[in-house]
Amino acid sequence: MRPVAIVGAGMIPFGRRDDDNLMDLLAYASLNALDDAGLGDKGVDSVYVANMGAGMLNHQMSVASALVDRLSLMPAAAEAIENGPASGASAIKNGLLAVASGYYDVVLVVGGEKMRDVSGWRATDFVASMTHPTAEYIYGITLPGMAGMFTRLYMEKYGVTREHLVQVAIKNQEMGALNPYAHVESRITHEGIVDSWHSRVNNPPVADPLHLYDVCPVSDGAAAVILAPLDMAKKFKKTPVVIAGFGQATDTHSLQERQDPTDLKAVTLASQQALAMAKLTPSDISVAELHDAFTILEIAESEHVGFFPKGQGAQAVIDGKTKLGGQIPINVSGGLKARGHPVGATGVAQVVDLVWQLRHELPEGRQVKNAQTGLSVNFGGFGNNVVSFVLRRGE
Amino acid sequence: MRPVAIVGAGMIPFGRRDDDNLMDLLAYASLNALDDAGLGDKGVDSVYVANMGAGMLNHQMSVASALVDRLSLMPAAAEAIENGPASGASAIKNGLLAVASGYYDVVLVVGGEKMRDVSGWRATDFVASMTHPTAEYIYGITLPGMAGMFTRLYMEKYGVTREHLVQVAIKNQEMGALNPYAHVESRITHEGIVDSWHSRVNNPPVADPLHLYDVCPVSDGAAAVILAPLDMAKKFKKTPVVIAGFGQATDTHSLQERQDPTDLKAVTLASQQALAMAKLTPSDISVAELHDAFTILEIAESEHVGFFPKGQGAQAVIDGKTKLGGQIPINVSGGLKARGHPVGATGVAQVVDLVWQLRHELPEGRQVKNAQTGLSVNFGGFGNNVVSFVLRRGE
Repeated sequence: MRPVAIVGAGMIPFGRRDDDNLMDLLAYASLNALDDAGLGDKGVDSVYVANMGAGMLNHQMSVASALVDRLSLMPAAAEAIENGPASGASAIKNGLLAVASGYYDVVLVVGGEKMRDVSGWRATDFVASMTHPTAEYIYGITLPGMAGMFTRLYMEKYGVTREHLVQVAIKNQEMGALNPYAHVESRITHEGIVDSWHSRVNNPPVADPLHLYDVCPVSDGAAAVILAPLDMAKKFKKTPVVIAGFGQATDTHSLQERQDPTDLKAVTLASQQALAMAKLTPSDISVAELHDAFTILEIAESEHVGFFPKGQGAQAVIDGKTKLGGQIPINVSGGLKARGHPVGATGVAQVVDLVWQLRHELPEGRQVKNAQTGLSVNFGGFGNNVVSFVLRRGE
Repeated sequence: MRPVAIVGAGMIPFGRRDDDNLMDLLAYASLNALDDAGLGDKGVDSVYVANMGAGMLNHQMSVASALVDRLSLMPAAAEAIENGPASGASAIKNGLLAVASGYYDVVLVVGGEKMRDVSGWRATDFVASMTHPTAEYIYGITLPGMAGMFTRLYMEKYGVTREHLVQVAIKNQEMGALNPYAHVESRITHEGIVDSWHSRVNNPPVADPLHLYDVCPVSDGAAAVILAPLDMAKKFKKTPVVIAGFGQATDTHSLQERQDPTDLKAVTLASQQALAMAKLTPSDISVAELHDAFTILEIAESEHVGFFPKGQGAQAVIDGKTKLGGQIPINVSGGLKARGHPVGATGVAQVVDLVWQLRHELPEGRQVKNAQTGLSVNFGGFGNNVVSFVLRRGE
């Protein structure tokens, strides 16, 4: 495999974007990444679009072909990649392998989702369409429902408490408030959350023991990266960021088939593969973006990746080890919790945020000092298809 | 790029498969390909699923992750690839690049579609969701409608007549009748079609000048291939088929933006790329599978690929040049017209049929004698994203 670098990165603010349709979101993020790389409408060989809901939510298919026309990139190749909430990382992976093969040089990968075209329950049902159709979906399970049960098991096994979860929410909303691309811009205070604990108004339960502030919002948004062979990276404007490692692993579709449902095997395996390929260990990582669709997932993933031993991720949050300036800053972007979770965009947005960190482009208060390496975990289904990257600042 | 071979191929009969859901179709075709390669549930590194309608037609997403579990291939990587009716070839392309990169060795690519879950007009509307949303879809255009207008223009420019189209239909249904995997199993006669020309019962108009027998059916079905590095191919049971060339090109999303709408630029470009990579010319090809979703497309593509000069493809059909035993046998499988067109399956099925031809496995009456090379054209949108392969019989 020839080494591959990220030579352009772009995003648009996540949130409610009532005036933009899906194609607008994809186009705006792509243009930001193309501009960032110093590319116009020439020189892109192939386009990968990460998306899950174009058909179900927006009644439009073949959006990758449509985007190539919208951006005047014809006759570039194009396809859409779907892997649920890990569609973004899966699309980057396919772009990576395409460049690594030597067949393509410059690849645009853009992830986007226009989720607010449908009402709240329809968005939840849309996401639930990735659960097992006969073992799970028909019984009315949703992703928040799964996360609630997972949280309860994690609490029982490892002594995680509501207080730990609250601290994740506070940390990520605090960082989100500093991120101009974040959906949730408001800070929350410990007092605010805890005081309203039994209130159905301020922080109502979503799926016990998870409340509103434990759950990512339903967002519109898009993010994009430009990939190129590392030996071409000097032709572009910005400091290249090398994709040093990559991993992907699947697990059982149905949660009930896992011997220990608190064991997110695919997270462990995918991140181990990515770290091994990069010849790094968890302690070598400067900054991480983990898939905190629910607060418990940030804690669980921080342990499964190996930043902390099993059962110690929750205390690490309380101790400030996952904050900016801590042992391993996690979700300095605000994470899915605050940046938002436009499903197809998320895996790309994680990588874009790491690229900005590794280029040292972020303002003080958001920049991890002298960040050299980054790790992302993009979590598909309920952990049944996980993709992880290790990125390294290039020369 | 390291050379890649197809070491396993499988299909299931296309048609109405009321007792099978989408996951069944994907699983059965995959198992046939795994068996054909002599693989069990070990040794597959990655799975690509080509599909367009899982969400819109079957209300299930993340089918690639689901399939990995269904086939006990965990922790293999998995994702779904969507490129409209060219999803199948796009998925093979991504599998090809993944193996060519050196990252994966053994990749399963399966394409499938369960279209008969919805009623007729919903299937047509589903397919129309890949037209331009504001320039085409909102005005009620469908793919048959586009094909009708395209046919009229082609008739005017090149003197194509109804008689030419009828001959394509007769040829492909004749071959389909011999193919145990074909949806349409009945032969049609010239007298039958022409006699019923004005009958709304036997051969009603669909989109003038196209009638029922000019249009592929709405089918359920799936097809699969196993890819591996050529230097590993001897480990498998069957004669390897090398992916000698590959091409892909996009064109304007909206038909009206093409200077000459009869010029299928993406077909020309994609097939030229594939032939150039294989270092072959059209006259070197033993057998071809072209995307005859409408009879006119077989004629138009046969010219755009370069089998015949522009304007001579129609006469070539009358002269028998595209029949088994002719100059270049096209759609010996029956094509989309008779084998059927389960959208995500088609591009994979084309390649499976070519693999069987190049292995010399088909019975007399279907086998192209001593076939050494094959070419496929998989046509996405209305020619706005076309993928072509050139295959070569290995040692």
